[in-house]
Amino acid sequence: MMMTLYNNPSRNQWASLAKRPELELEYLGSTVKNILARVKKSGDQALKDFAGQYDKVLLENLQVSEKEFQNAITSLDPKLKVTIQMAFQNIYKFHYAQQTPFLEVETMPGVVCQRKAVAIEKVGIYIPGGSAPLFSTVLMLGVPAKIAGCREIILCTPPSGNGEINPAILFTANLVGITKIFKVGGAQAIAAMTYGTDSIPSVNKIFGPGNQYVTKAKQLVAMEGMAIDMPAGPSEVLIFADDQADPDFISADLLSQAEHGEDSQVVLVTTSTSLPEKVNKAIELQLAQLPRKVIAEHSLRNSRCLVFGSVNESFEFINEYAPEHLIINCAEADSKVDKVINAGSIFLGALTPEAAGDYASGTNHTLPTNGFAKAYSGVSLSSFQKFITVQEMSKEGLMRLGPVVETMAEAENLIGHKNAISIRLKKIHPDSE
Amino acid sequence: MMMTLYNNPSRNQWASLAKRPELELEYLGSTVKNILARVKKSGDQALKDFAGQYDKVLLENLQVSEKEFQNAITSLDPKLKVTIQMAFQNIYKFHYAQQTPFLEVETMPGVVCQRKAVAIEKVGIYIPGGSAPLFSTVLMLGVPAKIAGCREIILCTPPSGNGEINPAILFTANLVGITKIFKVGGAQAIAAMTYGTDSIPSVNKIFGPGNQYVTKAKQLVAMEGMAIDMPAGPSEVLIFADDQADPDFISADLLSQAEHGEDSQVVLVTTSTSLPEKVNKAIELQLAQLPRKVIAEHSLRNSRCLVFGSVNESFEFINEYAPEHLIINCAEADSKVDKVINAGSIFLGALTPEAAGDYASGTNHTLPTNGFAKAYSGVSLSSFQKFITVQEMSKEGLMRLGPVVETMAEAENLIGHKNAISIRLKKIHPDSE
Repeated sequence: MMMTLYNNPSRNQWASLAKRPELELEYLGSTVKNILARVKKSGDQALKDFAGQYDKVLLENLQVSEKEFQNAITSLDPKLKVTIQMAFQNIYKFHYAQQTPFLEVETMPGVVCQRKAVAIEKVGIYIPGGSAPLFSTVLMLGVPAKIAGCREIILCTPPSGNGEINPAILFTANLVGITKIFKVGGAQAIAAMTYGTDSIPSVNKIFGPGNQYVTKAKQLVAMEGMAIDMPAGPSEVLIFADDQADPDFISADLLSQAEHGEDSQVVLVTTSTSLPEKVNKAIELQLAQLPRKVIAEHSLRNSRCLVFGSVNESFEFINEYAPEHLIINCAEADSKVDKVINAGSIFLGALTPEAAGDYASGTNHTLPTNGFAKAYSGVSLSSFQKFITVQEMSKEGLMRLGPVVETMAEAENLIGHKNAISIRLKKIHPDSE
Repeated sequence: MMMTLYNNPSRNQWASLAKRPELELEYLGSTVKNILARVKKSGDQALKDFAGQYDKVLLENLQVSEKEFQNAITSLDPKLKVTIQMAFQNIYKFHYAQQTPFLEVETMPGVVCQRKAVAIEKVGIYIPGGSAPLFSTVLMLGVPAKIAGCREIILCTPPSGNGEINPAILFTANLVGITKIFKVGGAQAIAAMTYGTDSIPSVNKIFGPGNQYVTKAKQLVAMEGMAIDMPAGPSEVLIFADDQADPDFISADLLSQAEHGEDSQVVLVTTSTSLPEKVNKAIELQLAQLPRKVIAEHSLRNSRCLVFGSVNESFEFINEYAPEHLIINCAEADSKVDKVINAGSIFLGALTPEAAGDYASGTNHTLPTNGFAKAYSGVSLSSFQKFITVQEMSKEGLMRLGPVVETMAEAENLIGHKNAISIRLKKIHPDSE
């Protein structure tokens, strides 16, 4: 039995069962602060020094050249290209449909209020390097940035030891329309996008996942006023399943999350007393085949299986947990969606694994972890927009609304506010006093 | 001349001209941390102790009673009641119209993606006390919370020396439908809403303005994972005006912002070389009459008047400044709106002072200050919602999308992700391998 089993845990245990392993980032503070300070002070030179130190590469230029783009496009496996294009289409379609229409309301005669979406001017996307080249994240962040119409979209990602960027990342960036890519990884990339260097422009908002250094750096620059996509934590899935669910599917879904990293959380919530044992057997069989077996085993040790007496109680716990990914694999899965208050993204039915949304269904895979789904949403088109309100009063509007504002301002002891109305009323109707 | 005049400042001066006075909050750190820790540890008792210490009042109950509500409703000036109701109507209308419709897109045959708004379950609103009883902020935060359908909406505000809450605040809360009001102010209120006490439930997101202690407390609890409305800074207005603008109106608008607090910023940007002198004269006359004259004088000293050679250059600077409030008081004001990329809320034409939006036009007055309008929006209905995505694949969808996901997962070296698809494809088509 790899997952710890809890049978009908009492409600006073729920909070601790919904708790994630604590992110220990404090000890990184001084290291990351030093990196930020060095980039702020020495710009490109600091970035090149860090590339030598961390990426073991001597970089002449930080920016990916046109030739490197062309090489990537030529060299990438044609099957993968077609595949990325299909995912692109789905993600584009779903995010394009998220546009907020221009709003205009005449709240009272002569008082018109509007609200409009405006793209954030400059955004930065961070894509981690390492064993998994996350070109899917290039789609998830690049596509809505392009649809929003951000004027400047830059991307930072660490180079490999030979100074190159994975061709799938370059192909995807080019497909999306991102042409400014910089070979910078880690906390130094966050610093560069915050302060700007000769090569790398500063941006208004930073998006993207990363290791602990990147997470800590985003936290620190957020304290300095930089906007970031959302607070980060390890990825997680919670599966709700009943007796009818196929244990092989559940096991595969749990493992697909467990392989992400040793700190990933996977949780199974079920009303079935027989399912947990079947799932554990399936996990044993499937785990043996998995290349990232060691990682998955480690994260399974932190993970939980909870058996509840009813569907309603199960969903009460699920809302307390507020999972990043929620798979609902049970009879009449559709009918359960309205029970969900807190989740990042929901995967419905036996045939919709989380992997579908991770890559290509069309939804965004940048989602709130660590219970943040209680107050935060995943990345969407509006993450790359601001909404500006506009109001305009006609003479009629001023005459109707003016006295309301005068009375309220006076009651709040803000006579200057009142005067801004009175002086106008007096001028349009000099005899009104 | 009270505002400092800059004639055609060169572009390399812009960044410093767009800079706000630094908020010095660091020195508050240990005081506020102590307050947070005491409330976390001792709950209601700590809150009562702080009420004695800071509000000079001995409180038996922290929660406002039904009787206190009734007294407030009975005692409040009927004219003010009607006025607040009119503002309520406008704010309700404009925020109700902000609802995001349920979205469903079939991204490819058999792959359905949805996005739906769900209210944040529990929200907390902070309303400062002091000289100006900000019942208008009760409307601005309470109305969208109610429209969103938040299940629990609580409000904290400091009591006066006799242990009472301003009746206008209670009347407005009751009008909005907020019934849980607590007599707690300052950093201790933020602590109570974060950690919960016997009397005060913890919430998922905290909204509302406040003094430096409140701001620092919100910063600190945000670091611990609490969601907050937005980073705070002193209020500010930037007015764009041309030769045709009435100096009396401009002066009144500048003063209405300047009276907020000594750290308020007011900026006049104009293409007219004669206007600044006229505005300064008008300010002198109007200032003399203002009850909050001393505050306004102080904040005018930090303030600037910039003259630019063209409308376009003016708006380039305005976008660099990213004002919380932007008044466009010039000929054909409408035609200038599209030049604005960065602003919280825009007030169009000669007859639309900021005061209209502060109270009653219908737009929200909780807006991004300190240049945050480059990446943040003001409070809106969606500030009280999360957006959850849902996806469901049919057999056809799985067969179409499955191979796409398999290829991408393999290219990212995530075989567990691939398996979650493969195992399903194999079971629905056992012969496909």
